Amino acid sequence: MANPITRAFGRRVRKLRTKRGISQEELADRCGVHRTYMGRIERGETNITLTNIHKVARGLGVSVASLVDETKGGYERAKGSERSDQV
Amino acid sequence: MANPITRAFGRRVRKLRTKRGISQEELADRCGVHRTYMGRIERGETNITLTNIHKVARGLGVSVASLVDETKGGYERAKGSERSDQV
Repeated sequence: MANPITRAFGRRVRKLRTKRGISQEELADRCGVHRTYMGRIERGETNITLTNIHKVARGLGVSVASLVDETKGGYERAKGSERSDQV
Repeated sequence: MANPITRAFGRRVRKLRTKRGISQEELADRCGVHRTYMGRIERGETNITLTNIHKVARGLGVSVASLVDETKGGYERAKGSERSDQV
């Protein structure tokens, strides 16, 4: 599944995670989700549910609103021309 | 399922919809989802996915961030003492 919305969300999660200098596994632990699921989130392969969005926001220490903010990072890029998934 | 997060989200959707003076069916049409599904969203009975949150935000004419903002209406209430689901 290469949905632009889930991919943009994943980019945003990855950006905030790498900013904090933590691994996917570490973030998964903080969020209380499985490491492989965190990988799927970051690659935009899963259509994350509202309660899991809350878990990820808590794990990253950001507000839910900020995490899904379309005007930030990943979402902006998703609206522009198609680009590769690099962060 | 009576999850406080999905219930708070549902309250927020209902609040914004009634503010606009439109029916659940009308909003469902605008969002491109089934009317019964919109009912389940408003009652917090479904753990809505990210792409459907985008649809509802678009249907209501608000940003996704604003729709899930925990500091607004329904979410505030969800954090307080348990109350009935009235709007």
